[in-house]
This record gives sequence, C-alpha cells and structure tokens, in this order.
Amino acid sequence: MTQPAERTGRTDAVGPVDAAQVPRFAGPATFARLPRVDQVNTADVAVVGVPFDAGVSFRPGARFGPTAVREASRLLRPYHPGLDISPFDVQQVADAGDIACNPFDIAEAIAAIEAGSDELHGAGAKLLTIGGDHTIALPLLRSVVRQHGPVALLHFDAHLDTWDTYFGAKYTHGTPFRRAFEEGLLDTSALSHVGTRGPLYGKSDLADDAGMGFGIVTSMDFMNKGVAEIADGLRRRIGDRPLYLSIDIDVLDPAHAPGTGTPEAGGLTSRELLALLRSLAGTQVVGADVVEVSPAYDHAEMTAVAASHVAYELVSLMALGDKG
Amino acid sequence: MTQPAERTGRTDAVGPVDAAQVPRFAGPATFARLPRVDQVNTADVAVVGVPFDAGVSFRPGARFGPTAVREASRLLRPYHPGLDISPFDVQQVADAGDIACNPFDIAEAIAAIEAGSDELHGAGAKLLTIGGDHTIALPLLRSVVRQHGPVALLHFDAHLDTWDTYFGAKYTHGTPFRRAFEEGLLDTSALSHVGTRGPLYGKSDLADDAGMGFGIVTSMDFMNKGVAEIADGLRRRIGDRPLYLSIDIDVLDPAHAPGTGTPEAGGLTSRELLALLRSLAGTQVVGADVVEVSPAYDHAEMTAVAASHVAYELVSLMALGDKG
Amino acid sequence: MTQPAERTGRTDAVGPVDAAQVPRFAGPATFARLPRVDQVNTADVAVVGVPFDAGVSFRPGARFGPTAVREASRLLRPYHPGLDISPFDVQQVADAGDIACNPFDIAEAIAAIEAGSDELHGAGAKLLTIGGDHTIALPLLRSVVRQHGPVALLHFDAHLDTWDTYFGAKYTHGTPFRRAFEEGLLDTSALSHVGTRGPLYGKSDLADDAGMGFGIVTSMDFMNKGVAEIADGLRRRIGDRPLYLSIDIDVLDPAHAPGTGTPEAGGLTSRELLALLRSLAGTQVVGADVVEVSPAYDHAEMTAVAASHVAYELVSLMALGDKG
Amino acid sequence: MTQPAERTGRTDAVGPVDAAQVPRFAGPATFARLPRVDQVNTADVAVVGVPFDAGVSFRPGARFGPTAVREASRLLRPYHPGLDISPFDVQQVADAGDIACNPFDIAEAIAAIEAGSDELHGAGAKLLTIGGDHTIALPLLRSVVRQHGPVALLHFDAHLDTWDTYFGAKYTHGTPFRRAFEEGLLDTSALSHVGTRGPLYGKSDLADDAGMGFGIVTSMDFMNKGVAEIADGLRRRIGDRPLYLSIDIDVLDPAHAPGTGTPEAGGLTSRELLALLRSLAGTQVVGADVVEVSPAYDHAEMTAVAASHVAYELVSLMALGDKG
Amino acid sequence: MTQPAERTGRTDAVGPVDAAQVPRFAGPATFARLPRVDQVNTADVAVVGVPFDAGVSFRPGARFGPTAVREASRLLRPYHPGLDISPFDVQQVADAGDIACNPFDIAEAIAAIEAGSDELHGAGAKLLTIGGDHTIALPLLRSVVRQHGPVALLHFDAHLDTWDTYFGAKYTHGTPFRRAFEEGLLDTSALSHVGTRGPLYGKSDLADDAGMGFGIVTSMDFMNKGVAEIADGLRRRIGDRPLYLSIDIDVLDPAHAPGTGTPEAGGLTSRELLALLRSLAGTQVVGADVVEVSPAYDHAEMTAVAASHVAYELVSLMALGDKG
Amino acid sequence: MTQPAERTGRTDAVGPVDAAQVPRFAGPATFARLPRVDQVNTADVAVVGVPFDAGVSFRPGARFGPTAVREASRLLRPYHPGLDISPFDVQQVADAGDIACNPFDIAEAIAAIEAGSDELHGAGAKLLTIGGDHTIALPLLRSVVRQHGPVALLHFDAHLDTWDTYFGAKYTHGTPFRRAFEEGLLDTSALSHVGTRGPLYGKSDLADDAGMGFGIVTSMDFMNKGVAEIADGLRRRIGDRPLYLSIDIDVLDPAHAPGTGTPEAGGLTSRELLALLRSLAGTQVVGADVVEVSPAYDHAEMTAVAASHVAYELVSLMALGDKG
Repeated sequence: MTQPAERTGRTDAVGPVDAAQVPRFAGPATFARLPRVDQVNTADVAVVGVPFDAGVSFRPGARFGPTAVREASRLLRPYHPGLDISPFDVQQVADAGDIACNPFDIAEAIAAIEAGSDELHGAGAKLLTIGGDHTIALPLLRSVVRQHGPVALLHFDAHLDTWDTYFGAKYTHGTPFRRAFEEGLLDTSALSHVGTRGPLYGKSDLADDAGMGFGIVTSMDFMNKGVAEIADGLRRRIGDRPLYLSIDIDVLDPAHAPGTGTPEAGGLTSRELLALLRSLAGTQVVGADVVEVSPAYDHAEMTAVAASHVAYELVSLMALGDKG
Repeated sequence: MTQPAERTGRTDAVGPVDAAQVPRFAGPATFARLPRVDQVNTADVAVVGVPFDAGVSFRPGARFGPTAVREASRLLRPYHPGLDISPFDVQQVADAGDIACNPFDIAEAIAAIEAGSDELHGAGAKLLTIGGDHTIALPLLRSVVRQHGPVALLHFDAHLDTWDTYFGAKYTHGTPFRRAFEEGLLDTSALSHVGTRGPLYGKSDLADDAGMGFGIVTSMDFMNKGVAEIADGLRRRIGDRPLYLSIDIDVLDPAHAPGTGTPEAGGLTSRELLALLRSLAGTQVVGADVVEVSPAYDHAEMTAVAASHVAYELVSLMALGDKG
Repeated sequence: MTQPAERTGRTDAVGPVDAAQVPRFAGPATFARLPRVDQVNTADVAVVGVPFDAGVSFRPGARFGPTAVREASRLLRPYHPGLDISPFDVQQVADAGDIACNPFDIAEAIAAIEAGSDELHGAGAKLLTIGGDHTIALPLLRSVVRQHGPVALLHFDAHLDTWDTYFGAKYTHGTPFRRAFEEGLLDTSALSHVGTRGPLYGKSDLADDAGMGFGIVTSMDFMNKGVAEIADGLRRRIGDRPLYLSIDIDVLDPAHAPGTGTPEAGGLTSRELLALLRSLAGTQVVGADVVEVSPAYDHAEMTAVAASHVAYELVSLMALGDKG
Repeated sequence: MTQPAERTGRTDAVGPVDAAQVPRFAGPATFARLPRVDQVNTADVAVVGVPFDAGVSFRPGARFGPTAVREASRLLRPYHPGLDISPFDVQQVADAGDIACNPFDIAEAIAAIEAGSDELHGAGAKLLTIGGDHTIALPLLRSVVRQHGPVALLHFDAHLDTWDTYFGAKYTHGTPFRRAFEEGLLDTSALSHVGTRGPLYGKSDLADDAGMGFGIVTSMDFMNKGVAEIADGLRRRIGDRPLYLSIDIDVLDPAHAPGTGTPEAGGLTSRELLALLRSLAGTQVVGADVVEVSPAYDHAEMTAVAASHVAYELVSLMALGDKG
Repeated sequence: MTQPAERTGRTDAVGPVDAAQVPRFAGPATFARLPRVDQVNTADVAVVGVPFDAGVSFRPGARFGPTAVREASRLLRPYHPGLDISPFDVQQVADAGDIACNPFDIAEAIAAIEAGSDELHGAGAKLLTIGGDHTIALPLLRSVVRQHGPVALLHFDAHLDTWDTYFGAKYTHGTPFRRAFEEGLLDTSALSHVGTRGPLYGKSDLADDAGMGFGIVTSMDFMNKGVAEIADGLRRRIGDRPLYLSIDIDVLDPAHAPGTGTPEAGGLTSRELLALLRSLAGTQVVGADVVEVSPAYDHAEMTAVAASHVAYELVSLMALGDKG
Repeated sequence: MTQPAERTGRTDAVGPVDAAQVPRFAGPATFARLPRVDQVNTADVAVVGVPFDAGVSFRPGARFGPTAVREASRLLRPYHPGLDISPFDVQQVADAGDIACNPFDIAEAIAAIEAGSDELHGAGAKLLTIGGDHTIALPLLRSVVRQHGPVALLHFDAHLDTWDTYFGAKYTHGTPFRRAFEEGLLDTSALSHVGTRGPLYGKSDLADDAGMGFGIVTSMDFMNKGVAEIADGLRRRIGDRPLYLSIDIDVLDPAHAPGTGTPEAGGLTSRELLALLRSLAGTQVVGADVVEVSPAYDHAEMTAVAASHVAYELVSLMALGDKG
C-alpha cells in the first residue's frame, strides 16, 4: 500500500450516507453512497467511471456501465463480514466521477483515460475503475505502471483479450493485454487469465498467449478443482508483487451477468468470483477495474449488482493490502 | 414570479454541462445535467426529488422515480424552440437533491416533505418536484400556499384523486386534493382535472368532486375538442392567479407511460400533454410536480423521458411566468 | 336485451369485492373481482375465458390471455362515467372461468368451445369471452346464432380474417369469418371490419371480402374522419339487429398493444377504440369477444389493461342494450 | 404433526385439477391448482397469501408475490420422486386465498395477518404462507407459537433480519426476528440463518445476532461444505422441536431469483435450496413461509417458479412430518 | 423511376416465399422473405443493411438494426391496399445483405458504405437501406448523387442532424446533413425536416439550419394541421425532383419506437408516418433509408415492425415512381 | 462416422465468415456464420432448423427457436480449446435452413420433418437439429434409425418425456420417447435421461420409464457426484453404439435458460451441461437435437447462447466421433 501506514486504521474517513436516515433509494448515486472526491481532503481510493464503449466488437452499451454499477451499489453496506473489515473506515474511499472520453475517436479516448488516471494517481489515490469496455485497461495500466513499475495481472474474463487486431484496429476491447505486453507494462512472471472459456479463433491463440507469459485458469477448472485450490496457485504466483486486477464481468455466466456484450455459456457463478477475490486478501493490489457491464442487456440490475459486489471485494482487498 | 424582476434575463446563470465536451452519458445525473444547489449562489428554481411511494394503492415503485427522471433528463438540451426561450439561462435552475422521507410512516414523511419544501422556498426558490407518488402533492401545496396563499390548480391525471379514504387512511395517493380542499389550500374558482378517464367508484365521486369546485377535462375531450380549445378554456379560468401544476404521469396513455402504478387505457399522448403545457405560457406558475413514475414498469425509459420533457416544459413556464 | 326488463335496475346483483376493504392486488383475479358464476343464482352476463391458441400463424401465446386480462381487470371500478351506468349493478355479471380446450386438436377444441358456450347460453347468460386466438370466434358465433339467428358483426382487427386456408387448414385464426359466412351465421347486411390496415396477399382478398358483404373502416379512416362520423355510419348499418362484437386486440397499434401475435404498425389508439365502442350505446349486443392478447409479448400489462377496458365497455353496452 | 395419525395416508383428499383434462394454463390459479379451502371439509395444510409489502426498505412489489407464485405453481405435479411422496394425497392441502392487509398502516396489517393466521390455525390447518415481504413473519410466528410454543427457526435469507429499527420503525422486513426474539417466540437453542452473505452495517450486527442464539450458515459454506454436511448440522440442531421455516427468496442468487427487493450477489442455486429443504425430511414443520418475491423484477417467472418449488418442498415436508 | 418503363408491370419478378407453404417464422429472414440479390438476374430495388453505429452520441445498438428489421419484415404481405399496388410484382426487389463496415473507424466505414452503395447502383438498383445510425446517410447520399445529381431531401427525424461537430468529430449521426450540404449533395430548394421536436442547443441551430435551405415540419404541426395539409406542402416543394427519403425511426414517439438511441417525447404516431409516406405517391424516389433502430431497447419488435412498414411504404413509392 | 475416413482432416471445408473482415453482427445468421448447404458440394453435418411448437403443453414459442439459436451462434469461433479441435475444419458443416412444417396439424408436421430429415441423410449428412419443441425428436429418430438401426439415447431434460398421452393426443412434446420405444427405435440397453427433476404425475411414471429401459441421472446427482463420475457411467453404458443426443434446453436451470416452455427449478448449470457433453468425446454420435428454446421468454439471448454452445459441443463430438 502506498499511503503511509498511519493512514490505515484512520478513523476520520467519511463514510457512506447513513441508510437509517436517508433511504438507500434517495440521494445521488455515488459509489456505495460515499462522498465525492471534492468532499474529502484526500482519497486513498478513488472510484472512477470510464463510460467508453467504442472498442467493442459485438453488443455495445458499456458506456452506461458506470451509472448502472453506481446505482446498484446503493445496496452496499459498510462492514465486510467475510474479511472482517470495514473498507470505508480504514481508508478514505471517494467517488471521483467519470472521465469524459470522446466516443468517436478511440485514440483520443485512450489518451483522456490515461491523463485522468494520472491525475488521480498524482493526488495520491489508488484507482478502482468502473468501465466501459475492456479497451480502457490499457491506459489504466500505463498509468498505474508509471507509479509501480510493471505489474502482476489477474485478468478475469471469458476471453483472452490478447488478440492482435480487428479490422486492422490495434486498440479494441479484445486486444488490451497484448498491447500492454508489447509496451512492457506487465510483469510476465505473474500473469493469469481466470475464467476463460468458449471457442477461440485457432490453436495459435493459445500459443501466442502463453508466449506472453499468461497462465490460464479456465471456468471448468472451478468445477473440477474448486476455488481454494485455484486461489492457492494464484497467490503463490503473485506473491507480493504489485498486482492489477482487471475483471471483465463476462467472466460470470450469462445467468449471473446477462448485461454484457460478448456472453459465453459455461461461466463462473458470482459466488465463485467473490470467493476467489476474497481469497486474495494480503496481495498488494495497486489498481483494479470492473468492465463490460452493458445495462441495456441487464435484468433487474443483476449484472450491476454483481459488479458492485466485485467492486466491494476489490476495495476491501485494497484496504487489507498492507496487512496481509 | 417571486424573484426580483432584474433576475429575469440574467446571464450569469450556471447552465448544464456541455455535451460537446462531456458525453451525455457521463457524469452525475443531476436534472438536465444542471449544477447542484450547493454549486450556485441562489437558485430561482430548485428541482427536488421526493422518493416516496408508501401512499400507493396498486403498483408501488415511484420511490425510484426521481432517479429515473434525472437519468432520462440527460437528453435535455438548453433551448426550447417551441417557446423560444432558454429556460436555464434566464433563471438559475439547480438540482436540490432528494428530500429523505421515512418509507414506513406516511405522516412522518409528509412532515418531512413539507419541511424540505419550506426550506427551499425560504431560500428563494420555486419548486419543481419529481415524485414519488401523488401523496406528496399535499405537503407541497401546504408549503407553496404559505408563500402565495391559496392556489389555482391544474391537476393532470387519469384519476380524480379527491377520494376520501382507503382502508381508513386519509393520506394516500388517491386523496391529496380532497385534503388540500379541506385545508383551504385551493383557490376553488380555478381548479381543473385534466385527462381524467376510466371507471369510478360511483356517480357520487363526480358530485363530490364538483362540490369542491373542480372542473373536468377528460381525455376524450382531447380527441373531440383538440388542445387549443381546451387550453383556451383553462387559461381563462386560471387568469393571473398563482398556479400550481400537479402532473401524474398516468395522465398519459399506458402506451406512452407504462411505468406507472395505476394505468388506465385511453389516455393522452405525450404530444398532447406537452402541447397543452406549452400553451399555458404566461400563467403564473408558483410550483409544480411530476409524480407517479414507477421505473420498474417502464421500458427503455420512455416514461421517464416523457416525464423529463414535462419537467422541461414546467421549468420553461416558470421562466416565462412574469413575461406572459 | 334478452333478459326480462324487470331485471334491469336490479339492486340485488352481487358486485365486485370492495377495494376499500380488500386491496385490488389481493384475492383471486376473477374478472373485475366479480363473483364466480357458482356464487350467484343466475348471471345475466357470463365472462368466460377460452385459453386456446393452436390456430395462430405467427406468435403464439394467447392461451395465457384470459389470465392476463383478468389480472389487469383488478383495476376496474364499478361506475362508468362516460355512459353514466354501473354495469355490474343493473345486471348480474359473473366470471364463468375457462372453457378447457385440447391444445393439440383444433377440431376438438372448437367443439368444446361450442359446447361450453351453449351451456352458458342455456343458463340464460350473454357471453363476454376472453381469448385465446381468433379461431374461437367461429364456435362462439355458432352458439350465439342458435339463440338469436344470424347476427350483425362488428369485427375490430388489423386483419380481415376472411382468408380461406393456411397449409390446407380451414379452421385457424385467419379464417373464422369466412367459415361463419359459409355457415350462414352472419347477417350479411350488417358486417363491418374496423381498424383494418397493413398489406394483404392480393387484391382478390378485398374482392372476396366484399363479396361476403363486409364493409371496411380502415385505421386511416380514424385519422381522416374521426370516431364520431365512423360511429354514425356503423350504427346506421347495424340498427337494431342482434349484434356480435369481435375484437382482436391487434386492432390497436403495437404501441398500445404490443402483447399480440401479428402486430401491424399504424393502428388505433386505445382511446379511439374505447370511444367507438362507447358510441355504440343502444345497439343490441348479444355477445362479444376480446381475443389475441399474448402476454409474453406484453409490457407492464398495457395490452391486458387495454383489453380489460375494452371488456368493460362491452359489458356496459350489454347493460345499456335494451335502453338505447 | 397435529392432525390425527390416521389422516396420513388418507385417500379422500381432493387433489389438483387433472392436467390431462384441463390444460395447466386454464382455470383459476389456486396454489398447484388445488381446491379452495371452501371446497373441502377441512384442510390439513392451508396455503395462504399475504400480499403486503409496506415494510420494505428498497425495491417494493412483493404485494404481487402471492399471485405470481400461484401462477407459477400451475406447473407443479402431484408426486415428489425425490421424497417418494404424493403430498396432496396423504394430507388435504387447500388454497385459503389471501389475507387482506391495509397497505398504509403496518401495525394494522400485522394485526390482520395475526388474526387471519389464528383463524386458519383454529380450523386445524398448518399454514404455508406466501408473501409479501418479510415483515409478515412476525405475526405468523406469534400465531403459530400460540399453537406450539416457542419454535425452532430455520431462516433462509441473504440477510440477518435481526436489525433493530429503520427510521425508528420497529416493524419492517429487516427486523422480524429481533422482535420475535424479544417476544419470546423463538426456541433459542435451535435458530439458524441459512444462506447469509453480503456486507453488514457493522461487526456488532453479528454479535447482536449471536446473542439471540442464532447460528449462521453462509452462502459460501454451501460451496465449501456442500449441502449434505450442512443439512446434518441443521437437523441435529433442530431435532424434533416444532420447526418454523421462513424462506426469503433472496437467499437464492439474483441469477436464480432476480424478482426480489434487496438482491445480493453470491447466493444459493435453486438446486442447493431445494436439496437442503428435502434433506429436512423428518423434522416437525409446524409452519412455513416463502417471502419477498417481487414480480415486477422477475423474468419469465423464474423467481416465482423457484418459489413454487420451494413451497412444494415445504408442503412435502409437512406431509412427511410425523413419519420422519 | 430510372429503370426502363417496360420493366414496370413485369410479371417475372421473383416474389416472397409463399406463407401458405412455408410459415412466416421459418426460413432465412431476408427482407420481406424476398430472394437474395444473387438469386435474381437483376434487382430494380436492392434492400441493403448497414450495421454501423459508431457515430452515435447516446444509446448505441443500431448495428443490430438490419437484422431486427428483416426479422420483423417476415410479416409483410405482397399487396398494398392503400396504394393498390403489389410492389414486389411490378419491380424486382431483392435483399442485398449487409455492407460490412469497420466498427472502430468511422472514416473507413463511411468509405465502405459509399463503395458498397456505388456497387449496387452500378448494377442498376435503387437502394433502400436499413441502418445503422444516421451517419450512414452521408455516404449513401454521395453515392446516389453521383447517379442523379443533387437531390431533394425529406428528412424524418426528431432532430435536425445539421449540427457541426461533437468532440471535434465531423462525421457522426448528428451531422450528416450539414456535411451533405457542404458537399453540395442537396438540392437546397427542396429540403425539409419532418417531425422535429424537443429542445435544441440554441436559437442559432435554427438559423444555421434555415441557412442551408431546410424547412421544418414539426411534430406539433401534425396535430395542428393534419397529414393531408402537410403532405400537400411537401409535394409542392418536391415536385418532380429526384427525391431522397431519410427516415430516422426516432421521428416516431417513443411509445411507437422505444428501440432507438435518442428518444424524444411528443413524436409522431406510426399511422401519421405511414400516411404521410403514402401521400408522397408520384414523387421520384431515387433512394431511401430507415435508420436508428436499436433493438436492445425495443419491445416485442414494435420498433422493428414500424420500421419494416416504413420500408414497405418506401418500396411501394419506388414502384409507383414513374406512374405518379 | 459414416463419411469416409479420408474426409476427416479435410482442409477444403468452407468455414465461417471471417470475423476480422465482416463484423459478427453483419450478414445473414446461418449457424455459426457457416455456408448454406447449397453453397458447398456436400455437407458432413447439416445444421437444420425445425420451427414447430404445436406439441407443447404449457408455454409455446419454440417455433422461433431456430432463428434465435442461429442469431446467438454469431459469437461462435472455430477452434474448441477444450477438445483441441476445429470442428468446422475437419468436416464440412453447413446450414440446411429450416424444414417447413404445418403449424396446425401435428401429424402432417411430423411427416414433413421425417421427410426432410431423410432427404438430408440421403445426401450424406449427419443432422444437428435445432427445434422447435420436443415432439420433433420422434420423426428425427425414425429417420436416423433408418440409417443406423436402433440407437442409444442420451436424453437431457428436466422431464422424462415418456408419458403416454395428453388429452388423448399421442404425439406431443411430452411423449416422443415412449412412441420411439414402441416403434423399436431405441437400443434399450443404452437409454438415459440426464438432468431430470421436478415433480411427476405419480410413482408409476418412474416404473413405466424404467420398463422401457431408461436409466435416470437426476439434476441432484450432478451436485452429489459431479460431472466426471456421471460421464464415466454414461460412456460405459453407451460404448460404441450409435448414439443420438436429444437435448431439451430445460435441462438447464431457469437461471441459465429462462427461454423455455416448462421451466423447473433446480436444474443444471450451463457449465455442467457443456462439461458432460465434452466428456462424451469418442462416442459415435449419429445425430443430435437441441430443442425447446422459446425466445419470447429469453433474456439477452442467454438461453439461445447456451443452446448455441450446446450445438457447438455436439458438432465437435461429431467431428471427433471416429477418432475417440
């Protein structure tokens, strides 16, 4: 954790609006009903939205993801019994709003995201980003790497996202991690895809991916090995490296996350995903994103609720980072 | 209009976020992407949400109405070509957030709404309220009447809402205007229901209602007479009295407003409603509400979009009030 | 009206459950929360469901129509202000449940419907039938004609339903009125389609239809002539003949009735349909049906609500029949 | 089991309508198409609806739960192969309709539920109640405890529901079991929450809850231990105490039960819930409820279908009660 | 009509699949179940899809428009009674499939659309294009103008689409007609927006638009003047100029077309739109598009059905072109 | 595998449209964007739709299943990493369109399906059929048995489908396998239901079923035993017999497959189903169907996506058949 140790355990953090005084359905939907960044002195963790989806190859709509996840996050309460922590208490978490991106120009949008991320990092915050499509992981990684050097990466996704180009385009939601690899942003000794499934373009996809250093934990592995064994392997691989977590909500089965753009049957349950995240307590999470929530395809906010719980685990991991 | 005349035409009003710089789908969903009340010195018009629906007799859910209408209002632009006015320019309009109400105690909620309204009135603002169910019209009327004395009332609704009690309860979404009448809040020379339709409990409903001074413009009248003739009659009746507009979104046909609690076939089109509101330019609107948007029953935000356009007409009428 | 005149104005009719004592959303969903047929001595009007949809050529699902319309009818109140009548007061209306039909054998189902209708007619009731697809109009007409002789017919529909066969099948939802014509069930001096629109198979469709004696009021006529003029023409044509009203809910525009099987753009508003029905006060309605509500395609019950209001107009026309 | 032993195995029970004669989609939707209470002499089990949702803190709509669950129960067949029992055969199960509650006054509603329950108990029936929100568990417990004394409780829920107050209100859907504890309705030696997950307000929530005697089986435990081990533990704890089962459908993951008011990711599958219930065969179930089905948020009746299967397991447990 | 006069009345045109032999829901969904272009010798009218939506400023999803409109077009029958024509009989209409466009590069996509259109024009076909977002109108106009010189334009839309840039981008769905004006593609003596409504950015929007020569028929005009009067004015303005029709489905009210990206309340009914199109019989339609159908926001295909009926009117106008 | 061994590994197979050139959302929706049968010389596997649902006892709509599954199959890519095979490469897979069936006459439809299947078999193809309701399995089995003699059957379903009649009808979606047994189409030494759950009509259902030779793997068995153990048992039972796989999508839990007609809680996850299918590699699959996808009840295509993945596993099994 980069903030001074004395920050941990701080008791002056401004927490969520009190749900016994203001109903959860009232008031503005900042993440978890936390204060805005401009309402606190400094934020240890900034939750920021990136409403960008011009990089998608199938169903668009993730531009509405940040709003949907924030709305669903109205239900989050401040104490995490599974990890025995109050993540909004030991660190100041605040909502930094959205980074405005040009929806008509991918390159310009990537630059804006990188700049927005740099600015928040510069103010001393870790970032928990809500997408948007997976294209945004590249500028987010560039920015976090400027702070921490190359990062270990846990990439939760139905897909590899290490393809090279679509229609000649290098910067899309299917290519961020190949670009990140090429740019030297990744600590190639600790890269894993988690939850991968579904057909690929060809056998070479796997070879290319392995060549960059990625290991793969498939969705089927969750059924065959269980979460605990998988988590052990991942934790060993990660060690105390600075870790970036990038979570495409399509890692969940469409039953759990219909509101996404490229659904694949046979995915994780939300319980498996939450359990695996929880078991990463003690790793040094330096940044994280939750992407690809496309609300037009969601039902009864179930995808957004799952994403908000994922975000809650992530912010809890950040709180626990330097205590693991 | 209660604010000093020199306020009209002011050029220092803070307007909406620029959609050519920040996409409409980005950033917090204040009404029309306008500033919050705490971001401006004074507001001429305060848009305030009242997420309360414990007064409904059939489908609940209007507690989520303020959020839905604000989200839909992202699409509003600043110039009204039909009335040739920029309503956010000639007056400062700002978003006052939500009034928190106890969902378990109708009386307590009514008191909170009344107090919240008084506070905003005290700061010099007219109120444009987004419900919530129609119960809220009573405390809103009490508060506005304290400023202006008994008001003329245009009540747009499929129903009369002048019933006496349900299950012995006096304060529900079907009774606000009977209570308002009993409390002397209404200028009985200028009361009209607009858009009424559907079956009643009995013939005495009509007699009771007429006894309070209400005239009725039915939904069928719109088909038979047209908007212009109806508007003429209403304007004559209202004159320059202080006017309160209470708009139950169920005045629209369920085709136009499925997202509401007590739908009745045979209603107005959104075009008729907008046209009628527009034709009230020059009346002295001292307050207004749009209620009964129940998002769980909406589709593709069509009800919320209609309600946001209704709110836009209302704020435009307020802007034009002292110029008519 | 076939029941003795002294029945009109009866004060012993059992009405709907009192909504001020039992919430509208509570209790079994008989039509308009009226008693079941077995709870009253005799019924003047029996509301009966026919959950049959094996005759449809496109989207199925009307088998769930009776349930959906009954659920939506929870909102109906007992007094009709437009016609100044309490239709459940001057006549005993009761819910006769559903006629069970074989979903796998159209001929057998038709026979069951005919028998069920005969039984209710035998008990002295007029029938207001809720479908089910339009195939059911044929057995219903056979049964009512046994009581009254050939009937005048007002057929509200986007389509003509006088086609001959599909796939060689003679009894489908697109053919009932040709069969009825061939069987001599129709008074060919007073037959009208109302609301027709959309493309046909060929010009001969119109010639065939005219050859059976049908007049056509198109949906476009409603825009060009208005309801009053159309109603005048229809009333003149019908006179005091025994009249059967068959209302395919797809006569409404898909905006007003998405929940149906063969939608056509450019249809009636629910207000136009209700107004036209209302203007038939004084005709001698001997039976009626509302068909083709397919709830799986409905949204927020808007189609079912419209159908329930249509049914309410029909039962009101029956109440007014001998007073017109 | 309170009914005489000779009642078990009775062959005179009136069962469901025969689906080979009357299609499942036809006829009134009593629970499982069973007779109404007034159609049988006495009922061993009364299935009763409580359409009340004024106690909810987030999404309302459970007032429509009883109707939705009954509609979904049309698919239930009479023989349970997993438990080798025909639950409608060995005991008379009948539908007791709904208890009408005042939607505007929680206290009055609670009194009505208690009275309605007492009346059915007085007629010799066990109650299987379909909610409605969880507030209703309190009056149901009061009534059943008058028959049986303090009961063991298995509470299936994502939440603890042992909070104290919201907005000062003591009787809400988040507080029934604290009230029940305070009123001495619970056998504190055999209380368990099952399926709990998601964040809490604070660590003290757990301490308070434990202080009342509750044990907790989390949703994560299902993944780590499996159903069989959990069931063993629960059965040991319950023994032959009179047992009340209260099942909030939100114990299921939102993927399985989107139609509810306070969804939490990471929940049970419907298979886990059904399996656990089934494994309780032999316990002495003296009453049960299934609550918090909010149909406006459901899709394709999946939540209602799950709830109807839960109800089927419950009625089967009741049938097996005195044979375990 | 550009094809030789002797083609009109041709009897060798290959028509739709026979719905009495192959159910409408079976087989591939070419437009109106017509042959593919490769199945006929030459096509007089090519129906072509352009699944592109990277130019949208709010809700995306129109990339799925062509598929949705084709699916809805399964219901179209071959004879148009309103215009007394069989549009698939007097001219060969065929489905040309989709033009593949790069979703990540607007400029490249525009070039591909222009090339694809040129190719079909080169083969002698008029184009009826199904979008896709409104960006595509520009390359379509470029291509048709190469055939016919500058064209008269009827632009049906809630919006003007003559804005200059968004985020500096010149080629988006809000700017095609300004670009077309600048490129000299439009016959400035005959340009009209039809159905415009909703707020604008400023008064200068109107001035800019008028400066390009556009007249405006607002949605309110339809209520005040009626379709016939509007059509007279438009026909006079158009005369016998080559006419391009560009129809943004959001010209319809959201009640009629929820499935679109930038909905505005107060729009046209589908009946008004169809009637107006029909009244253009005799104009020389040289090309047309229907754009902005975004199926993820549609319900029960109502938007797609409306769009398919619009397309049917357009193809009928093309058939009647040289006979007017 | 019936085609000559040299066909395996063929490199001249025409594969799917290249998604890097033509976006997945563009172009006609043949299965997996593969060529049509008429575009290839011979097909080793023909994917054929049977849009028939007149045999259903509850929710209809599977007539739209083939279209929905094909649309969802746009997302399938050509390499199967789990089985290390490119199923469209080693064998020619092509889309054979739909078999047109009379929706009004079950017997006629069955005959048409049988004839259509015979024709495709005659051309040398194995069939992968997309339903349609389960009635279609009977004619498909008749046809495949003419090629291979009585077949082993793996029947994935929530239900047994070995009932005798409904309403006297022998050919429905609940009876195909009893008929198949009676006709001697089944190799009674290797028959299994997989995924069965939910209540039955009576204990005799099980006895009847066992009497035909069926074994049952319940859905609960998946939780208790796991996929691997179940697969072992099934593979032993099947051996190298010619195997027909009939997969009712309702074998999945409603959470994974809401879009079906007779949902039962407690079902398989899509991951379990895909894993079990995958573990059948090496069996001799001579034909397969995926049935009962009813799109009107689906959400965000999740059921259709699952069905498309099931189909992908099936075609992969066919590719591996003679190599196992």
